[in-house]
Amino acid sequence: MIPFSLAIHGGAGTILPELLTPELEARYLAALEAALEAGGLILKANGTALDAVEAAVRSLEDEPLFNAGRGSVFANDGSQEMDASIMDGHSGRAGAVSAIRNIRNPISLARAVMEKTEHVYLTGKGAMDFARSIDAPMEEDAYFYTEHRYQQLMEVRDTNQTAMDHNIIIPDKKFGTVGAVACDSNGHVAAATSTGGMTNKRWGRVGDSPVIGAGTYANDRTCAISCTGHGEYFLRTVVAYDISCLMEYKNLTLQQAMEEVAFNKLQPVGGEGGMIGVDAKGNSALVFNSAGMYRGSLTANGDKMTAIYRI
Amino acid sequence: MIPFSLAIHGGAGTILPELLTPELEARYLAALEAALEAGGLILKANGTALDAVEAAVRSLEDEPLFNAGRGSVFANDGSQEMDASIMDGHSGRAGAVSAIRNIRNPISLARAVMEKTEHVYLTGKGAMDFARSIDAPMEEDAYFYTEHRYQQLMEVRDTNQTAMDHNIIIPDKKFGTVGAVACDSNGHVAAATSTGGMTNKRWGRVGDSPVIGAGTYANDRTCAISCTGHGEYFLRTVVAYDISCLMEYKNLTLQQAMEEVAFNKLQPVGGEGGMIGVDAKGNSALVFNSAGMYRGSLTANGDKMTAIYRI
Repeated sequence: MIPFSLAIHGGAGTILPELLTPELEARYLAALEAALEAGGLILKANGTALDAVEAAVRSLEDEPLFNAGRGSVFANDGSQEMDASIMDGHSGRAGAVSAIRNIRNPISLARAVMEKTEHVYLTGKGAMDFARSIDAPMEEDAYFYTEHRYQQLMEVRDTNQTAMDHNIIIPDKKFGTVGAVACDSNGHVAAATSTGGMTNKRWGRVGDSPVIGAGTYANDRTCAISCTGHGEYFLRTVVAYDISCLMEYKNLTLQQAMEEVAFNKLQPVGGEGGMIGVDAKGNSALVFNSAGMYRGSLTANGDKMTAIYRI
Repeated sequence: MIPFSLAIHGGAGTILPELLTPELEARYLAALEAALEAGGLILKANGTALDAVEAAVRSLEDEPLFNAGRGSVFANDGSQEMDASIMDGHSGRAGAVSAIRNIRNPISLARAVMEKTEHVYLTGKGAMDFARSIDAPMEEDAYFYTEHRYQQLMEVRDTNQTAMDHNIIIPDKKFGTVGAVACDSNGHVAAATSTGGMTNKRWGRVGDSPVIGAGTYANDRTCAISCTGHGEYFLRTVVAYDISCLMEYKNLTLQQAMEEVAFNKLQPVGGEGGMIGVDAKGNSALVFNSAGMYRGSLTANGDKMTAIYRI
């Protein structure tokens, strides 16, 4: 039996202590705890890494604090378009959706694409047709509406500015994405990522979150990775698969491979953000080149950590 | 000065001599010649690899024989949805579009995303809004209509079958995608891929063609790659970037890296198809694990080749 391992993130960016109230800090930490609990329960019961990452991400999607699922930000046209992807390191199968609306849990729709179709990636209206065909749980716009998010859009709409920020009240950048990676007691790994995109985004912009290889990747021979950051840089750098290749082809450890990509590839070109990873031996790593990353981890021996800022 | 190099493909699959008439064969070879000519003219005049791959792919998109641009197949709802991506190995920049309609040259729209926005990837209605904002050349449905393609849809609609085939009259599989890769006289590389998707496709299925890292990748340090094949396998395998990583991290040659991925990674799991590549020294390679691949190459010393079947 492999000691199981779980790591989660709720976005990275310019997250500094002076920018969060103690009360808001406590709410974020409690939400991260809840997601660790949701995934951890499954792993403790010898469930699969795939089930664990889906459960952890669903918990983060249901929490309005994070930019995914219920807490998704508003696009320029006032809609909330979401993207998600999931990959199973045991089978090598993957599922992804982009530009979907009104889906309660995008990560579960991505999993349904993986398990119920011959495809990997569905987008837009067609993905919504698929969601209806399998009776995927939907919610009215009101479910996703938070006054706070709407004010964020009002502040930047007509400025031609997009805001990748989870929270526009925080100056500079904050990337709203949630994700989870897990290694289960059979040594199988999985990764899941979900996002509500950028406030005021236009033109159907897609970031790295639904892209297998960029925002999400899992392979039992190497690792499972979920990313959060300035998506365009993560797409061009093929971040998640690069970490896997550095482990497979250059024998770097998980931590070394993640640091190589975060600090030597992304940072020099301005690619701000972070990523979480596990390998198939139960090691986990949480790496970011931004000021902070909402994050947490849990191991089989009971070590549990949640954090926001650089320590 | 580096000796320039150009390679193109027009799709791979079960393409056997007994399935094509001599007249159709001649038409395919002439269309491949024309695309080599379009890209080659630019490279001969010391133009950029980026301009050359765009020109070669535009030529293939304008030719109704290939499943991209004008010759795109019909989706289940009778529409023609197209995907494309382009990457510049010199700057590391990339552009991609998916689920677009009525765009005369999808590859040029992908390039506009790269050059005129801060984004990499636009999809669906939003991508069409962007296209209109830059006055991208559009065509009415009639331009894309070919009786042959429509009959293909009629043959499989209501059968619940999708056909990844360029040509359903050909039994078994044929993957309709076009692509080009080039190395220019400055040693810069670029890659471009464009597709009309699968006949009778539903649910907004996206394959590897618009995905940077999977269907398209370019990096002056390693190679430029464009893929064609069963997209789902190419997405999970992150094919184009894997070839780059095998060169960068394991010091394989371009040919070795492409053969490793085509025969040792894709083929064992049923991932049928092929890919074309160039490195920054002007070497090119054309590799496929299917019966045939419409393909061609051109080098600075005047060597020109077009072919369809395995030799």
